[in-house]
Amino acid sequence: MPIYTESLSLLTDLYELTMAYGYWKRGFASKEAVFHLFFRKKPFNGTFAIAAGLQSVLDYLKDFQYTPSDLSYLATLEGADGQPLFETAFLDYLGALRFCCDIDAMPEGTPVFPLEPLIRVQGPIIQAQLLESLLLNVINFQSLIATKAARICYAAGTDPVVEFGLRRAQGIDGALSASRGSYIGGATATSNVLAGKLFGMPVKGTHAHSWIMTFEDEEEAFLTWAEVMPNNVIFLVDTYNSIEGTKKAIKVGKQLREKNIEMSGIRLDSGDLTYLSIEIRKLLDESGFEHVQIMASNELDEYIIQDLKRQGAKINIWGVGTNLVTGKDQPALDGVYKLSALRDSPSDLWCYKIKISEQPIKITTPGILQVRRFQGREGYTSDMIYDISNTCEEPQDLLIPVMRDGKVVYTSPPLDQIRAKTIRELSLFHPAIRRFLHPQPYLVELESSLHDLKLSMIKEATYESTSHR
Amino acid sequence: MPIYTESLSLLTDLYELTMAYGYWKRGFASKEAVFHLFFRKKPFNGTFAIAAGLQSVLDYLKDFQYTPSDLSYLATLEGADGQPLFETAFLDYLGALRFCCDIDAMPEGTPVFPLEPLIRVQGPIIQAQLLESLLLNVINFQSLIATKAARICYAAGTDPVVEFGLRRAQGIDGALSASRGSYIGGATATSNVLAGKLFGMPVKGTHAHSWIMTFEDEEEAFLTWAEVMPNNVIFLVDTYNSIEGTKKAIKVGKQLREKNIEMSGIRLDSGDLTYLSIEIRKLLDESGFEHVQIMASNELDEYIIQDLKRQGAKINIWGVGTNLVTGKDQPALDGVYKLSALRDSPSDLWCYKIKISEQPIKITTPGILQVRRFQGREGYTSDMIYDISNTCEEPQDLLIPVMRDGKVVYTSPPLDQIRAKTIRELSLFHPAIRRFLHPQPYLVELESSLHDLKLSMIKEATYESTSHR
Repeated sequence: MPIYTESLSLLTDLYELTMAYGYWKRGFASKEAVFHLFFRKKPFNGTFAIAAGLQSVLDYLKDFQYTPSDLSYLATLEGADGQPLFETAFLDYLGALRFCCDIDAMPEGTPVFPLEPLIRVQGPIIQAQLLESLLLNVINFQSLIATKAARICYAAGTDPVVEFGLRRAQGIDGALSASRGSYIGGATATSNVLAGKLFGMPVKGTHAHSWIMTFEDEEEAFLTWAEVMPNNVIFLVDTYNSIEGTKKAIKVGKQLREKNIEMSGIRLDSGDLTYLSIEIRKLLDESGFEHVQIMASNELDEYIIQDLKRQGAKINIWGVGTNLVTGKDQPALDGVYKLSALRDSPSDLWCYKIKISEQPIKITTPGILQVRRFQGREGYTSDMIYDISNTCEEPQDLLIPVMRDGKVVYTSPPLDQIRAKTIRELSLFHPAIRRFLHPQPYLVELESSLHDLKLSMIKEATYESTSHR
Repeated sequence: MPIYTESLSLLTDLYELTMAYGYWKRGFASKEAVFHLFFRKKPFNGTFAIAAGLQSVLDYLKDFQYTPSDLSYLATLEGADGQPLFETAFLDYLGALRFCCDIDAMPEGTPVFPLEPLIRVQGPIIQAQLLESLLLNVINFQSLIATKAARICYAAGTDPVVEFGLRRAQGIDGALSASRGSYIGGATATSNVLAGKLFGMPVKGTHAHSWIMTFEDEEEAFLTWAEVMPNNVIFLVDTYNSIEGTKKAIKVGKQLREKNIEMSGIRLDSGDLTYLSIEIRKLLDESGFEHVQIMASNELDEYIIQDLKRQGAKINIWGVGTNLVTGKDQPALDGVYKLSALRDSPSDLWCYKIKISEQPIKITTPGILQVRRFQGREGYTSDMIYDISNTCEEPQDLLIPVMRDGKVVYTSPPLDQIRAKTIRELSLFHPAIRRFLHPQPYLVELESSLHDLKLSMIKEATYESTSHR
């Protein structure tokens, strides 16, 4: 999705650059670091997330460089004393920087659980540090929305879910990335035409209330619509009164049959969707329009869809906007990017790193990590997070090489195959993990020697900290 | 903010294009329409929103055109029968389209209330319709975040608020637009370097836990930091233990004085911020570091800041991320864009339009609307929404011309002046409207003849609808 004219190298928190300056100035430029990207909190009170955003990240990193315009801007930044924040020699260093990190990542569409690394970056500490904000921004958001979409599609069962969120999405890329994430998570189409163009995903749409209001009466609006777009005949019936609107749609539908045009759907965008869809279904069926589908929208989410289905609502297609594209009940995945190993140069031994916190969930796992997913006869049984020095990587390991020495070494499958992967992979977990209320937890354990190492490093860091009191 | 290589003309819901096709096909291309953009629900359970996003909208519209690549993509879209959705002649029409709408809008930084139009678009129905999704996307999001920022800054009082949200923002533009909106709403700076470059707003940042973890011990990390960046000396003290970290920072701070370097701040990113900030303040003051500021972050929002202040927390600078840039408790402003008047050509009389709904809040206001804000001796007293045919526009009217015949006729002030306007304007309302719990409602009335017209149109539409039963 390379749609930006600006280099995105400055899409970073300033502290990444000030730290890079510090590493450079202190002579740490050759130090090698390992960082992992992972989230801590189960999104939406569920169990899993769907990994998404990798392809976008690789697209951005392919062209990672500081342009003369970026460097000129950085030269204008000042510290508290009005002096430049960065030395010119450092800006020259950034300008000449050739990106050479190794990256391993979970393919998009992989179900992932808290504390499991989605991405591992190994490379010069300056470069690995500078990627933090961009990686987090892209992966956090697309994974969040893919996860929300998977939940909404689970509620919708076999019914299609169409993403309608452009107008309420958080900015332009908030919309585009949400369309992409929604499709990865299982949605069937989007209303966002640019997303269709950029990502090759299906787009859907017919008309709004303004179309109906442009005509003296609804019948004329419906009839004209079907005549101008006979292969896309879905009527929006709630401009004035949904039941009366449906009666008019049926009347027009009968006239259309004489012209060999078939009404294919009714769209509802307000009111009591259970009552209205049941009444409209009856009216349609009584009039020989059994095949006409009922599409509904209006502040839907997985809970409302599940409840409408429980109430017997006769809805066949779900249009979901705001709550999907913003992940409304949890609008951010809490992904973080943490240092876990360091060495002075590629020929040195690794020194493992841990961050201690008064909040236990914020204590990191040291090492160079991989995730193994175990499969039994009936599907996946558990995951193990391990250090790659303790056991060799195997095919069922979840992180795969995507970048070596700054070059992309992974070809992302087309988006529809990523979507199919999500659906297939989720089907290999016990369905209870997808439940909205009290979902069954899935077992993710630290491999035993890694667990022991982490505990001993916590003790050491805590002792060291308290021993100076 | 023209940072996109793609034309944004396809950043639209498909139904805008299918409706445009219908209008064109039906010979409605010369019809003229008026649409208003407004929101219905008070954001964040408060009273007001801060208008934002206009400059971005005008930047995009300046270059509004369908590129050959856009038209080629549209030519690939198919209806249910596998036939093209659009005739070639329509795509040619789009390719040749010259944008010629008139737009009136509230300047950025204007406090605005539910149902008041933020933007009025008048022009050929096809063009006015095609703008809907883009206008809503940009205005909804930037206004949402400017509003959230105004609330957070209100809680922070005179303390600076720094926006830190890039890593948890909803995509790239979700971050950039949030930085812009936050600044308009009163934040003093952002951590997002690209936002600083694009919008000319201040950027801030020092180091993260990874900097501290790169060194054998915290003292070395602090000392090195101050040496490499002596004009930006804020120490992050919570990598291992916040109190112990502060003691080390003080020890280093004393050594630095011998080198004429002054520690300027302590940053806390976890733990009990009240307890820790009080203890840290004591330690600092006892050691001759009374001027050192305490900056805190960690899932802050307006309620937590207000509560921390009530508890006596000694925090001087507030770093706010996720909850600000996502508008967490309400991640979308519910702005809509509704048709309210129509005429066959610019020489005809206007026919006013209304949309009825079973949900009263969804009934629209007909006409060509303007908003007048009345000012008494102590500030603003009330707003009136009126039809411009009933009274002449006056200087205190809120919508001003920003585009005529498709050309931008408005020069947006620099962002810092917009920010100053927000602060000044908000000060002219009774402070009770800014309260978080049970804020005082502000009076917004329909002008009386407009009110009568609306009622009579509701009756007519309802009668018409029911009379066919």
